[in-house]
Amino acid sequence: MRVLILGGDGYLGWPTALRFSARGHEVSVVDNFARRRWVGGAGSDSLTPIADLEPRIAAWEANPAGDRIRSFVGGVEDGDFLDGVIAETKPEAVVHYGQQPSAPYSMISRQTAVETQQTNVVGNLNLLFSMRDHVPDAHLVKLGTMGEYGQPNIDIEEGYIEIEHNGRKDTLPFPKLPGSLYHCSKVHDSTNIHFACRTWGLRATDLNQGVVYGIETAETAGDERLITRFDYDELFGTVLNRFCLQAVIGHPLTVYGAGHQTRGFLNIRDTLACVELAVANPAERGDFRVFNQFTEQFSVLELAEKVKAAAEHLGYTVEINHLDNPRVEKEEHYYNAIHTKLLDLGLEPTLLGEELVESLLHTIERYKGNAIESSIDPHTRWNPAKSPAGQA
Amino acid sequence: MRVLILGGDGYLGWPTALRFSARGHEVSVVDNFARRRWVGGAGSDSLTPIADLEPRIAAWEANPAGDRIRSFVGGVEDGDFLDGVIAETKPEAVVHYGQQPSAPYSMISRQTAVETQQTNVVGNLNLLFSMRDHVPDAHLVKLGTMGEYGQPNIDIEEGYIEIEHNGRKDTLPFPKLPGSLYHCSKVHDSTNIHFACRTWGLRATDLNQGVVYGIETAETAGDERLITRFDYDELFGTVLNRFCLQAVIGHPLTVYGAGHQTRGFLNIRDTLACVELAVANPAERGDFRVFNQFTEQFSVLELAEKVKAAAEHLGYTVEINHLDNPRVEKEEHYYNAIHTKLLDLGLEPTLLGEELVESLLHTIERYKGNAIESSIDPHTRWNPAKSPAGQA
Repeated sequence: MRVLILGGDGYLGWPTALRFSARGHEVSVVDNFARRRWVGGAGSDSLTPIADLEPRIAAWEANPAGDRIRSFVGGVEDGDFLDGVIAETKPEAVVHYGQQPSAPYSMISRQTAVETQQTNVVGNLNLLFSMRDHVPDAHLVKLGTMGEYGQPNIDIEEGYIEIEHNGRKDTLPFPKLPGSLYHCSKVHDSTNIHFACRTWGLRATDLNQGVVYGIETAETAGDERLITRFDYDELFGTVLNRFCLQAVIGHPLTVYGAGHQTRGFLNIRDTLACVELAVANPAERGDFRVFNQFTEQFSVLELAEKVKAAAEHLGYTVEINHLDNPRVEKEEHYYNAIHTKLLDLGLEPTLLGEELVESLLHTIERYKGNAIESSIDPHTRWNPAKSPAGQA
Repeated sequence: MRVLILGGDGYLGWPTALRFSARGHEVSVVDNFARRRWVGGAGSDSLTPIADLEPRIAAWEANPAGDRIRSFVGGVEDGDFLDGVIAETKPEAVVHYGQQPSAPYSMISRQTAVETQQTNVVGNLNLLFSMRDHVPDAHLVKLGTMGEYGQPNIDIEEGYIEIEHNGRKDTLPFPKLPGSLYHCSKVHDSTNIHFACRTWGLRATDLNQGVVYGIETAETAGDERLITRFDYDELFGTVLNRFCLQAVIGHPLTVYGAGHQTRGFLNIRDTLACVELAVANPAERGDFRVFNQFTEQFSVLELAEKVKAAAEHLGYTVEINHLDNPRVEKEEHYYNAIHTKLLDLGLEPTLLGEELVESLLHTIERYKGNAIESSIDPHTRWNPAKSPAGQA
């Protein structure tokens, strides 16, 4: 199958490209290396040493499991560029990771908020038009986020909810309470994609993903030249990855507030499995399908405690620090999100056991010399008018 | 009160500015004249002769009811410009009409879709940041649209709905099914404003307005130099205004499909009354309030028949033409939208009687020599792949 990966140089995009290539698909990737620039601009860098895209692709092509990957350098927000790529590669499936992916980055300033929404919304809108015009039968697999739903006081369904109201019924988009301007941008994308499916008959799957953790995947594990990026800074690191790095370098774990915020989580290997399942089982024409893509729910404090236990088992000394929460969010709340559709398609979850945390800690140990500790603590406040109280 | 009107040169922005000025408020307006350019670029022009902004303001200042209005020329999507205006004028209320307001314009091409979402979403996001930073206690009165809701099979509530699900309850944003990429942009704005209220404690009222009709308001009726613009072309004319112009110049009324699409409507005088009521009764800090702003529901065919009857009463000969519907929308559907909050604040609706239609026809008759008939028929199709069938 011809598969186009937008954001194919990123944390998830790169191993996804290898996965599809290893399975014999014709893979093309698009990236403008914005993620590398954003992380660098924030004074951090990938913990893992990653080569430039071309040498990485060459390493993959030299690998026994490898095959040719075509690459296109440019941004999805450049509509003419993207249109040319779609017209040339005629993908049957487009996996769209090509976005600004950080909630705190979107909350730094007006400029980063606008950059986030413009990159994400315009890029995705460009894609919808190009798919309509060149490959209307192709399947869009879009990375959304569980953070679009926020923290409602009812069970979170997969994208839609049947509402009975004044004696009438309809199944409507699940109401959203996004938790940052980045999360808002993902809600906007969902609204635009749903519209494109209803109006133009496109087919799309929105993968409302939980928080991803992990480094290695089947394709990257054996060859260091293929390893994916690993971020642990305030802006681009995800919470479990951050905690693991912090434990290894002896930085107190940065729990925000009481740490009772509960979210869905999944291993990077399961991200790849979910994307593969979505591509192998495409949505119908006109259908905007939504899957909640995570395998387990944890509170942030539970995660910190898991990391502390596993790290202490390996001989590290770990302190948990409760920082004044820089985000505006409920710390005590109901949270129960349905996530059966990917399981129904055959997903076999990789659960977060102590062994898995230990393996992550081992991998980080190898690269800990690269860690830039100054990038770890949170400086971006959701509401700058609320002065920090009790921050350690 | 210091009132800032964004889009103060437009169809609704201009008479709104005069209304607040006539009531003794300190009014400033912002506009970049994009609406004039968009309409001109589409080969049309305002039916009513409108002077440039500065001479219009001078005419108002010379009028017995008039007072000083400050003007700032620039686009809301220019964040530094807008930030300067907010910092300088320190508004207590901001009425935000400064957007690309046409559904068909947003559906012409990728470029117009991107322009629409970029202008609207980025402009509104800039505004939210500037209000947060300079006037966090000011009240944002944002023009939304009833078209954000689409055509659900349940009653449409005012912005929120209480949902009971699996034994638990929450009041959540009413699910949206926007009918064009313009309508999607308004949904995005609502999501962003709601977030800003929850996170930064801003106060905002979203006026989900129905389709506006009419020309004259109390302040513009007596002095032709103060008249507001009147659009009747495919892209920027609203349906009742279009039908009235069509009846006067002998163009068959352009009903799309069967014409059973039902929507909420209101008179331009009621738009001004509603905005005034919202400003006079501000939302609480942190509150994102939504009012459904219309006074009556009609189907498109009912409107055509009303116009035909009134026009024939005045001696015009009127034909109704059912065109192949260029939009993708349900023509047969349930529609019942709640609209009590503005009535509760004291709105006294101007209902669409035959007399009112006749008065609109009389005003149009005065200017019919300006009509550009070639701009009337629809050329923009929501789904270009669906070839027109049975178009007259």
